[in-house]
Amino acid sequence: MIILSNDDGFNAEGIRVLRKEIARFTEVVIVAPETEQSAMGHAITLLEPLKIREVKEDGEFIGYAVRGTPADCVKIAISELLDEPPEMVISGINLGGNLGTCVIYSGTVSAAMEACIMGVPAIAVSLDTFENPDFKPAAEFIASLIPYLRKKPIPDGVMLSINIPPIPKDQIAGVAMTRQGKSRVIETFDKRVDPRKNTYYWLAGEMRFDEVDDGTDCEMISKNYISITPIHYDLTSFKALEEMKDWEIPL
Amino acid sequence: MIILSNDDGFNAEGIRVLRKEIARFTEVVIVAPETEQSAMGHAITLLEPLKIREVKEDGEFIGYAVRGTPADCVKIAISELLDEPPEMVISGINLGGNLGTCVIYSGTVSAAMEACIMGVPAIAVSLDTFENPDFKPAAEFIASLIPYLRKKPIPDGVMLSINIPPIPKDQIAGVAMTRQGKSRVIETFDKRVDPRKNTYYWLAGEMRFDEVDDGTDCEMISKNYISITPIHYDLTSFKALEEMKDWEIPL
Repeated sequence: MIILSNDDGFNAEGIRVLRKEIARFTEVVIVAPETEQSAMGHAITLLEPLKIREVKEDGEFIGYAVRGTPADCVKIAISELLDEPPEMVISGINLGGNLGTCVIYSGTVSAAMEACIMGVPAIAVSLDTFENPDFKPAAEFIASLIPYLRKKPIPDGVMLSINIPPIPKDQIAGVAMTRQGKSRVIETFDKRVDPRKNTYYWLAGEMRFDEVDDGTDCEMISKNYISITPIHYDLTSFKALEEMKDWEIPL
Repeated sequence: MIILSNDDGFNAEGIRVLRKEIARFTEVVIVAPETEQSAMGHAITLLEPLKIREVKEDGEFIGYAVRGTPADCVKIAISELLDEPPEMVISGINLGGNLGTCVIYSGTVSAAMEACIMGVPAIAVSLDTFENPDFKPAAEFIASLIPYLRKKPIPDGVMLSINIPPIPKDQIAGVAMTRQGKSRVIETFDKRVDPRKNTYYWLAGEMRFDEVDDGTDCEMISKNYISITPIHYDLTSFKALEEMKDWEIPL
């Protein structure tokens, strides 16, 4: 059985299209946030209880809607809601790419990361557009990837972050194994004043692709490749650790 | 000028004790969440506006309280609230350690990570206890570390995650450069039923230190060392990327 989760919410188009493709050949349960949880990073809910709603549509059990974050969904699905461990957790299909440094902020990636931490194979899938998304080609690719991963398992301790260009299948150049690029969102804050004269700010900003290095997710998607980046949760910079080995910090 | 942030909130004891120590020798501004934001991971606020409150105490400007996440605080401090880039961002002192895999969930670490992404030197500081914390020895250590880091800058592209054992200074064994360990919280969910018969769950769980490998933060703090782990935001597993280089995934 495969769990689907996401950060766009239980009723988002991306997860529903993916469910339809995967349900053709294997059992699938959605465990996803009740409402949109974009840019939640790897947040988990400690200060409030989690409320769970069992969802049926036309009399059929579809899954669970969780008032919580993407990581909450995966934690409670594996620990509590399911009778046996799932074969795999798939998070997405996200509306918008999760490329370069943006991976850090991604609720989509965090759901798959949580599964990975819990020892369950996991992938995160993002469609690199916000406009007129057609999720079907991406969903078909993921459905065809599952049998491949049954033969070639994901390496231990990593999850796969997959970004898919928003183009028809016959225009996709191929599938590239990539590393995380350095592109990031450059923020601007839109300052406003409310009717009671209080100042507030909206976070705005746009993705800056000025460092598109060879072999990165950012580069390969710009060349119409599907990018697959193996992601782990050891954040240690071993290069910096080597540089710091002679540091003698006094107490 | 140094920015202090955290995830325990503007009025938490840990940040106030640290402020007092640092204010003795350099200008310091707190930009911290209005309320506790523990386990927020690297969340940022996209769906709501950020409200900011300028805080004065006894007529003195202390900083800004932000209705948002730790990463929001650092983003808006650097992008909008301050006239010039800070010398450093320090996040903490957190109530409780941020060790092993828990780093992924830490709002404390995310504030420093955000500064690092924005090119500002940054450290996250956590006191490894939840009971009767005495933040003063930890604050004194950080105050003494700042002049050291002015001579030996933090390597580019990393931040330092510092965990401090909750013991008097004369019992601390030393300062160790470490890598992130594998210890993690094993979750349990406490299932309850509300007065209207709806089921809800509280996330519980405890830290499991069953994989305390040599040279990790988890090992060194258990031996009464202060651990300093250099953390970066490239989540690529290069080991897995090497293993996957012969994968030929069909479209």
